Amino acid sequence: MRNVGSSSSGRGIAAVVGVGPKLGRSVARKFAHEGYTVAILARDLGRLSRVAEEIAREEKAQVFAIRIDCSDQRSVREAFEGVLSLGFVEVLVYNAYQSASSTYRPTSFTDIPVGSFQRSLAVSAVGAFLCAQQVIPGMIERGKGTILFTGCSASLYGVAGFSELCCGKFALRALAQCLTREYQAFGIHVAHVIIHGVVGPPRGSAMEYRGMVTEQQTLQSEEEGEGESSGVTGMDPDRVAQTYWYLHVQDRSAWTQELDLRSSFTSFY
Amino acid sequence: MRNVGSSSSGRGIAAVVGVGPKLGRSVARKFAHEGYTVAILARDLGRLSRVAEEIAREEKAQVFAIRIDCSDQRSVREAFEGVLSLGFVEVLVYNAYQSASSTYRPTSFTDIPVGSFQRSLAVSAVGAFLCAQQVIPGMIERGKGTILFTGCSASLYGVAGFSELCCGKFALRALAQCLTREYQAFGIHVAHVIIHGVVGPPRGSAMEYRGMVTEQQTLQSEEEGEGESSGVTGMDPDRVAQTYWYLHVQDRSAWTQELDLRSSFTSFY
Amino acid sequence: MRNVGSSSSGRGIAAVVGVGPKLGRSVARKFAHEGYTVAILARDLGRLSRVAEEIAREEKAQVFAIRIDCSDQRSVREAFEGVLSLGFVEVLVYNAYQSASSTYRPTSFTDIPVGSFQRSLAVSAVGAFLCAQQVIPGMIERGKGTILFTGCSASLYGVAGFSELCCGKFALRALAQCLTREYQAFGIHVAHVIIHGVVGPPRGSAMEYRGMVTEQQTLQSEEEGEGESSGVTGMDPDRVAQTYWYLHVQDRSAWTQELDLRSSFTSFY
Amino acid sequence: MRNVGSSSSGRGIAAVVGVGPKLGRSVARKFAHEGYTVAILARDLGRLSRVAEEIAREEKAQVFAIRIDCSDQRSVREAFEGVLSLGFVEVLVYNAYQSASSTYRPTSFTDIPVGSFQRSLAVSAVGAFLCAQQVIPGMIERGKGTILFTGCSASLYGVAGFSELCCGKFALRALAQCLTREYQAFGIHVAHVIIHGVVGPPRGSAMEYRGMVTEQQTLQSEEEGEGESSGVTGMDPDRVAQTYWYLHVQDRSAWTQELDLRSSFTSFY
Repeated sequence: MRNVGSSSSGRGIAAVVGVGPKLGRSVARKFAHEGYTVAILARDLGRLSRVAEEIAREEKAQVFAIRIDCSDQRSVREAFEGVLSLGFVEVLVYNAYQSASSTYRPTSFTDIPVGSFQRSLAVSAVGAFLCAQQVIPGMIERGKGTILFTGCSASLYGVAGFSELCCGKFALRALAQCLTREYQAFGIHVAHVIIHGVVGPPRGSAMEYRGMVTEQQTLQSEEEGEGESSGVTGMDPDRVAQTYWYLHVQDRSAWTQELDLRSSFTSFY
Repeated sequence: MRNVGSSSSGRGIAAVVGVGPKLGRSVARKFAHEGYTVAILARDLGRLSRVAEEIAREEKAQVFAIRIDCSDQRSVREAFEGVLSLGFVEVLVYNAYQSASSTYRPTSFTDIPVGSFQRSLAVSAVGAFLCAQQVIPGMIERGKGTILFTGCSASLYGVAGFSELCCGKFALRALAQCLTREYQAFGIHVAHVIIHGVVGPPRGSAMEYRGMVTEQQTLQSEEEGEGESSGVTGMDPDRVAQTYWYLHVQDRSAWTQELDLRSSFTSFY
Repeated sequence: MRNVGSSSSGRGIAAVVGVGPKLGRSVARKFAHEGYTVAILARDLGRLSRVAEEIAREEKAQVFAIRIDCSDQRSVREAFEGVLSLGFVEVLVYNAYQSASSTYRPTSFTDIPVGSFQRSLAVSAVGAFLCAQQVIPGMIERGKGTILFTGCSASLYGVAGFSELCCGKFALRALAQCLTREYQAFGIHVAHVIIHGVVGPPRGSAMEYRGMVTEQQTLQSEEEGEGESSGVTGMDPDRVAQTYWYLHVQDRSAWTQELDLRSSFTSFY
Repeated sequence: MRNVGSSSSGRGIAAVVGVGPKLGRSVARKFAHEGYTVAILARDLGRLSRVAEEIAREEKAQVFAIRIDCSDQRSVREAFEGVLSLGFVEVLVYNAYQSASSTYRPTSFTDIPVGSFQRSLAVSAVGAFLCAQQVIPGMIERGKGTILFTGCSASLYGVAGFSELCCGKFALRALAQCLTREYQAFGIHVAHVIIHGVVGPPRGSAMEYRGMVTEQQTLQSEEEGEGESSGVTGMDPDRVAQTYWYLHVQDRSAWTQELDLRSSFTSFY
């Protein structure tokens, strides 16, 4: 664990699992900006620490970088010992998935190694299961909490050549629905965000938004944390992060369980 | 048309079709609060005028009450002549539907008069079609606009004894999807809000939120404008209205096409 | 009404609404082949009579051609007086829809005449509503019956430029669901068949199956009865009709409410 | 492997994975009845052998009982070495799932051992993945084949207390969709059957069909092969099996990818 930052907060902890240079970072920054102490978790602690430093500096917030391998139970448990030691985890954002490769080309089904298929389920579904199990008891005790899961087009329909991604993302959506039904009465808001399209770098950055996105590219969506950062176009992650924040602040009289997000500049799919 | 209020606004017009004492009023008030000149439309001009006066007084806003019968083409056209004469309609909220009765009990299919079935389609689908046709040309011209449609559980699955409601609401959802696909590239944000459950009176009002809602009651949802106001429990319409507002202010880099809303106090269905 | 054929049958009547040269004809022929007296209904009585003669001759069956305009309540009622005079209507297949044009090109939303939109709802939804109302009382009395509705891709998601078709087809799907829930306990099997793609001429005919179907063409699906017959490629209507028959003979211990059909030669959409 | 029976068949092999006393047995018997050599696979070889003997005797067919543990890669591979040694596997029916317990009561999410969650994914998703990988190359080579996956209500929406079942079944549905899109052009028909409700013993058996099924019981559906057989009411498995057979014989001009099955005697859910 790397602690970066100085200001202390009366609020709970926001834990963001699966943080790379795009969506995860923007979500973490938004919660930091709003006064939360933030724990960001991913596999690459070096890169993660730089993100933590950047957010801490820009938002004058306390940001903790904690290594996690979502496909490894022990790693998840150890990581959350660290997270839970920081205080009450009020928010969990689960944003990790196993990218089969850095290229996002379809793989012929018969060529997929079973180990690769299993790792995808391990990261998308088992990792989410474990992280949720770590934070829910505290949320029940306090009678509040928010758990946000990141989905994509592959959460809704199968795509030839992407069974690893689709099976994991379908399972994650099921988990979100089960948890909503079980825990909404306890004041825990569980929601599933379906991002149709590629999340790119923030709009203000050097690499600008360049327009139309093809269906193929949509499978690159949220290649955060567990994937590589190769995309140069796409949705503004800061704008996507605003909806994560909005879901968190919805009143429990009118909670959203699922919504989609897509850029108005993409063709529909 | 009844003009109530005094302050002038640099913003466009927000037109809310289907305004009774609950959701429609709360949505209108929210947009008024945020600086919009608001046109509210429903069949009962007397009741509507009182709502307009109340909002104008409370929000120091300009509010116009305009009579509309959504099942009648000429009435829709005349009403929108009035709305469009106020200025650029930047926001359309379509919240009207034909309530078969004030009781919301299921009707045996063979007992439904075809005229009643047709009126339900006329209000839910044809009325929405006509209102959208009135405002879209102006939105295309300005390259911006928001159109929000109100759906409910009956938008997603059939219910025995409620074919009038379900057929109309399914058709409305189709319309929302068609318009999204056609007009998002023009900067027009079309979204469909699925309200699962009864929208009650605002929480601060005399009639308080009394807890659990049964499935049967969910069909009472958003009995605005065209229906009667009999429910005394349900979701806080001011909270629901916040999500309508949020959809309006989403950046076009990350627009939501559809989301659901339900109270955390209801059982799931 | 035109009565064609000679053999008498101990079975009930199968009424097929929306019969052109393709799917409707194949469904009618299949039921005739299996021993049903068949009533076929469409707007063009001349063409319909030729189809009736052909089926009667080939299947040695009794086939009645009855004119219907599904957008006209009185026409539907009169047509079903004829149908019901033939005996117990055991099977209703509703296959009619309003084709906006013979070209199936998308129409800009703002250019759609409201009358055209209304007629589409009238044929897809109100016509189906009326036909179902005519036959359900008899089915309840006998404790059996089958009602099959034809849907297409546009029953499931909106398509830019096709709001007429989509709104009507969404509404029809709602109707199928409502009727299933209300009447399955009475022994009435209601099912919705989603045909993804173009239904072409029968395979044995002069015009052969020529392969891939584009998405655009899918909107031509089942342009029976109410539409024109221009397609020369597509799914074999006799094969599609087999699934209609299979749904009819399913045991009520295991009924299907909805299924899809697509050619394995088409790309997915 | 236990070989039971005597007649030889010119047809391919039908492999049914997940065979207990109900659905799996009925599906195997139907394919045996239609002339297929059948391989039935489950964990309990003793029980399986008795089923094989019974089918072989009744249908005068060749039936092979092969032990499989779908949660164990090596067991799946070894089992399919046996299956593939019998000849060309023309049909694969995947019917196995991990039943959390014999009681089907909901389990509080925080009480679910991660190992149990993983085993459910292993059986529902990884097992199906592996079995499909074993048979697809042969199907591609011959340009034909049928793969049928068994789903249930939990394939479509999450249920509180059943995240193991739901996540596994959602993932299986994704797999079915991915395989359909990848392999339909090769002549391989992949379909997903959603069984809403409990599959009971065959109707002719001592235990008779006793009527209404509660929602809770629906989670017992197809507790074949991997689960225990405790239900005494439910859908007739022989009738359900007829639809599996019908999917197999559909012409590739009009294939079904997904359908639902429910008893007309159950209330809807």
